[in-house]
Amino acid sequence: MNMPSDTMDREAARALHRQLTVVDGLQYSNWDRAIFEQLREGGVDAIHVTIAYWENARETLSRIGEWNRRFAANGDLIRPVRAGADVRAARDEGRVGVFYGAQNCSIIEDDIDLVAVFRELGVFLMQLTYNNQSLLGTGCYEDNDTGITRFGREVIREMNRVGMLIDMSHSAERTTLEAVEYSTRPVVVSHANPLFFRDVSRNKSERVLRALAESGGLLGFSAYPLHLGDGSECTLEAYCEMIARTAEIMGPEHLGIGSDLCQQQPDEVLRWMRNGRWRRVLDGDEPEPPRWPPQPAWLRDGRDFPNLTAGLMARGFSREEITGIMGENWLRVLDDGIAAMH
Amino acid sequence: MNMPSDTMDREAARALHRQLTVVDGLQYSNWDRAIFEQLREGGVDAIHVTIAYWENARETLSRIGEWNRRFAANGDLIRPVRAGADVRAARDEGRVGVFYGAQNCSIIEDDIDLVAVFRELGVFLMQLTYNNQSLLGTGCYEDNDTGITRFGREVIREMNRVGMLIDMSHSAERTTLEAVEYSTRPVVVSHANPLFFRDVSRNKSERVLRALAESGGLLGFSAYPLHLGDGSECTLEAYCEMIARTAEIMGPEHLGIGSDLCQQQPDEVLRWMRNGRWRRVLDGDEPEPPRWPPQPAWLRDGRDFPNLTAGLMARGFSREEITGIMGENWLRVLDDGIAAMH
Repeated sequence: MNMPSDTMDREAARALHRQLTVVDGLQYSNWDRAIFEQLREGGVDAIHVTIAYWENARETLSRIGEWNRRFAANGDLIRPVRAGADVRAARDEGRVGVFYGAQNCSIIEDDIDLVAVFRELGVFLMQLTYNNQSLLGTGCYEDNDTGITRFGREVIREMNRVGMLIDMSHSAERTTLEAVEYSTRPVVVSHANPLFFRDVSRNKSERVLRALAESGGLLGFSAYPLHLGDGSECTLEAYCEMIARTAEIMGPEHLGIGSDLCQQQPDEVLRWMRNGRWRRVLDGDEPEPPRWPPQPAWLRDGRDFPNLTAGLMARGFSREEITGIMGENWLRVLDDGIAAMH
Repeated sequence: MNMPSDTMDREAARALHRQLTVVDGLQYSNWDRAIFEQLREGGVDAIHVTIAYWENARETLSRIGEWNRRFAANGDLIRPVRAGADVRAARDEGRVGVFYGAQNCSIIEDDIDLVAVFRELGVFLMQLTYNNQSLLGTGCYEDNDTGITRFGREVIREMNRVGMLIDMSHSAERTTLEAVEYSTRPVVVSHANPLFFRDVSRNKSERVLRALAESGGLLGFSAYPLHLGDGSECTLEAYCEMIARTAEIMGPEHLGIGSDLCQQQPDEVLRWMRNGRWRRVLDGDEPEPPRWPPQPAWLRDGRDFPNLTAGLMARGFSREEITGIMGENWLRVLDDGIAAMH
């Protein structure tokens, strides 16, 4: 007699999911209409998309130009997000709102003035480091974490001033804690998991998780297999159990989703993400040769987002908690974090 | 018994000037607070400022960054203009509205997508050529004018689409006439004079003037001595006589001001404007070595703009004609020209 109640649960979850404003805090897919249609089918209202890994300022302008082409060609499915209110507008229009983030500070090169320029172009988040030492701080794969640099302190102040969210997803621990200390505004990790769920350099300690919460920021839970216990075999139940345990550490209002979905990307893109222009071999805890690991069965593409709502319901999260984790917490941080200070 | 009536005329001109919305269609000064204060004192409500001569995309981002610093440091005197309505807002706030233009297509390099990106950053006008052959067309100092290139046609279409005004100030005649032919929106010459006033490569033939008017665009009259009959000795009366004769050719609704004021610029800047990175000697009709010619006594800086209103009154222009020439014609072209097409 399980089927009926399972079916009832599934229906209840779908009913709740339809009422949510769903925000995914990081995706980097090989974009096409099919992906945008999947996101709509899955009730995803807004996504944070990566526009740069190692790109310099000039290259990033062309990445933004490519998004302008996508908006022109798929205006029935997607729209640019210039403020938190645009996410709610996208939801009302039945479109997916898109906002930009850089996974590295390479986009500003050595010019602090480019923070405001890229903010003006809609870049809402910037990571201070991507895996490696940057001009601003230390990445999560370096042996020596020397914290925030002199330039880094200036850029944090400038990001605070213009309203660009500081994202420490790929940063080392000391650098992350110092960023929270120096920043007067919320700091986020848009896509990672707690270290207790899987002990890899990209996941975060309880100390970091508490610091993010104290800053008013959030953690976006990743569904990238290398960040998951049991990798591609990770169950939805284990994932939601991780979320429950993290809620005890950070509070449910500081949790969000950052799926890190990278759909249809060729292995060459993984090589670019890992190696950029700086070397020819791969990171230690990445498979060699670069190969995309299979997604867990419950989050393969945009159509699967209702599974997350169902999983959170099954784990016993309240309607209010689920509403926050699935999108409202991201919206609150965006509303707070991207307004210019005067 | 002249003085009293002169005084009365001056008072009448100042009274009218205070009621105008004054727009200057091109300035490239070595900006500081004193210059912004002069503009306010002269009742100038908005200026089109040059952000690039030979700069590439990356360099132009830093020029925009420098303007963001000026807005932050002089917010009581200047403000960015993102739409025609912002000019009227600037006037009401007692500030000078600033909008960007590029004197060359170097800012987009070879990437048509950068037209929309720079429009998003507030670049309202772009010249298709600056003196030389460009990727888009032929400049006014080339021996052979081959018209608009293949890339040039695409960029004209894109500028029309995103709402970026086509400025042909430094372009050759055939290239200018073809730009007007290919463009579906108004084409301007932001700063030059009619050829009949001074026969130099930078000034425009009656055929070009008529084409600009037919496109719905305008000519911004230059006060740069090398564009003036008698150069630095040019009288205000002769200047306003030129405007009157041009009004007969184009109609007064297609006339504006484009002073080309370049205050406090060292001669090295003139060398950069003339030679960029492409050669080491100067243009034929420019003095060698590069030296800034003295401005005519009636337009040395922003404080002198009331002289233009007085000169136009003295020449017998109507209040409506003066209102248009001093700013409303520029505002009409901006309102029409910079709205995105859908």
